[in-house]
Amino acid sequence: MANLDLSRDVVSLTADLVDIASESLNEKEICDAVESSLAALPHLDVVRDGHTLVARTSLGRAERVVVAGHLDTVPANANFPSRLEGDVLWGLGSCDMKGGVAVALRLAAHVREPNRDLTLVFYEGEEIEHEFNGLGRVAREHPELLTCDFAILMEPSDAVVEAGCQGTLRVDVITRGERSHSARSWLGSNAIHAAAEVLNRLTEYTPREVEIDGLLYREGMNAVGISGGVAGNVVPDEARVSVNFRFAPDLDEKQALSHVRELFDGFEIVLTDTAPSALPGLSRPAAAAFVDAVGVPVRPKYGWTDVAQFTQLGIPAVNFGPGNPMYAHKADEHVPVDQLIRVEEALTTWLT
Amino acid sequence: MANLDLSRDVVSLTADLVDIASESLNEKEICDAVESSLAALPHLDVVRDGHTLVARTSLGRAERVVVAGHLDTVPANANFPSRLEGDVLWGLGSCDMKGGVAVALRLAAHVREPNRDLTLVFYEGEEIEHEFNGLGRVAREHPELLTCDFAILMEPSDAVVEAGCQGTLRVDVITRGERSHSARSWLGSNAIHAAAEVLNRLTEYTPREVEIDGLLYREGMNAVGISGGVAGNVVPDEARVSVNFRFAPDLDEKQALSHVRELFDGFEIVLTDTAPSALPGLSRPAAAAFVDAVGVPVRPKYGWTDVAQFTQLGIPAVNFGPGNPMYAHKADEHVPVDQLIRVEEALTTWLT
Repeated sequence: MANLDLSRDVVSLTADLVDIASESLNEKEICDAVESSLAALPHLDVVRDGHTLVARTSLGRAERVVVAGHLDTVPANANFPSRLEGDVLWGLGSCDMKGGVAVALRLAAHVREPNRDLTLVFYEGEEIEHEFNGLGRVAREHPELLTCDFAILMEPSDAVVEAGCQGTLRVDVITRGERSHSARSWLGSNAIHAAAEVLNRLTEYTPREVEIDGLLYREGMNAVGISGGVAGNVVPDEARVSVNFRFAPDLDEKQALSHVRELFDGFEIVLTDTAPSALPGLSRPAAAAFVDAVGVPVRPKYGWTDVAQFTQLGIPAVNFGPGNPMYAHKADEHVPVDQLIRVEEALTTWLT
Repeated sequence: MANLDLSRDVVSLTADLVDIASESLNEKEICDAVESSLAALPHLDVVRDGHTLVARTSLGRAERVVVAGHLDTVPANANFPSRLEGDVLWGLGSCDMKGGVAVALRLAAHVREPNRDLTLVFYEGEEIEHEFNGLGRVAREHPELLTCDFAILMEPSDAVVEAGCQGTLRVDVITRGERSHSARSWLGSNAIHAAAEVLNRLTEYTPREVEIDGLLYREGMNAVGISGGVAGNVVPDEARVSVNFRFAPDLDEKQALSHVRELFDGFEIVLTDTAPSALPGLSRPAAAAFVDAVGVPVRPKYGWTDVAQFTQLGIPAVNFGPGNPMYAHKADEHVPVDQLIRVEEALTTWLT
């Protein structure tokens, strides 16, 4: 089993986490390692649910804060394991979001008497369909474990505060045809050819830019998968385009789905995944107080993050983590060493 | 193990063959059954190679004829097992081409002293990539087993003679992009969106119609497969469209590939499968003599058949089998009872 030594500096600890492969649905090893490292900390009460961990102090403080990070990554893209070069740590998950997880583990080990009670959440299944999201499962099944006054998601935010988040939904756009032998294709109807129109609507689509609370949100409408085909000599009778819509916080899930249905009017649509957007919520006192305390700029969050889950629970939440989110899910994913250190320092200071 | 009783009439025998599932690459059971039924016939010398059988008489006749049929089918399409309704036998492979195989097995069992030496070939892997074709393998590795003066492929031809055949080739047309998180899609480049242009060229394509020896050949250019996608939240960096070109006998494989490259100019192309066309060859004496003897009309063959393999070996060959080829590979595949009987009678008469 992989071991984690929480006495190592935040950069080494991030590298150690990157070097434990943890593609979504394969989080057992990394969760075991994190659980084992937390077991040595008597000030924390640890609960495991699947491959998701909740570790809490119980100091009777006036406020409680949740600090959360997911353990899974997207598939490797020639960027595993980690590689430290000068002031940059490269590798799958270094940015999204094992750097944030390393900071949270450092807080667990080294801030033993925080000025606010601390709930640390390390969870599985964030990078895939929402149904696998460990934080979502805990929110549904054990919401008492997430009770708090304010939540910080340690998603990469370039070491500034990112507020709100875009919603995301996925649909399959399905085309139908009629099978025939490809040598007599005029007897059939080619469902893959029919998908040309689906792709044309995508290439011609202009995503919105929406300003909310002074923050600009950019939407996106993308095919993230396509499939079709029966055999090499058969005109296919079905094709599917999986489309991911990232929508600004002024739309709820229902409105977003309506927009997608309108865009693909005339085609069969099946909703396969959806997660709500979150308004920036900067007017909420707990959020405003945190922003003031850490003294860093505030930007809009483009990616979907579990901030939205806290918003749905009525808890103010922001993203604040090391790493430029533009490099998440890319072959050249990396995190700057100084951001790891700065984020750890900002949170340590705020908590002590 | 499935058993075949060659004393049953040709319709029952076709149904028995249909009821042995034999999708390409899964021909062991049907080949075992055919081999076992032939083993009871002392006038035939049987050789097995993989799941391909060659059964020969050695009567010292002046002429030798090959009668050949493939044992595999495309995947089931809610049309398994067989169902006899009045004068029609329905089911996967009834038309393409277990009806023809049944006729050949009836000839094996009941024409024990043919006026021409008889070589029966039952082979695997015809419905998929050419490399798996059992007849092709025997032609390459044991060409002496196919020595003959004339060959009849029992591919469905509506009980008339179909001459020549279209060639077929498959290419993957590949589009490239750059991965990014789908929440920040403007940082990547979507390879599936780039495939829109590939599908547009296909939908706008007008296939040729070519007349040769008085027979009209219709070409076809079809996407038979499409794939792409990394994960549900990643802008994909690659998509592949598998395109099948069915070309008239006036083109050889090289010319056909050039045409495809021209159509998809600007895209990366990988040739995945190719099989030559065959000119009708009706001027060849053996072919003309057969057409005269059975006294049925002659039409062009649209599908690719192994006629082309015999053409490449310099052996005149035609398609002559029960079933309308328009129903091959379709959910409503079927063969008319009267065609099974007529084709069996025509060949029995010609061979005795």
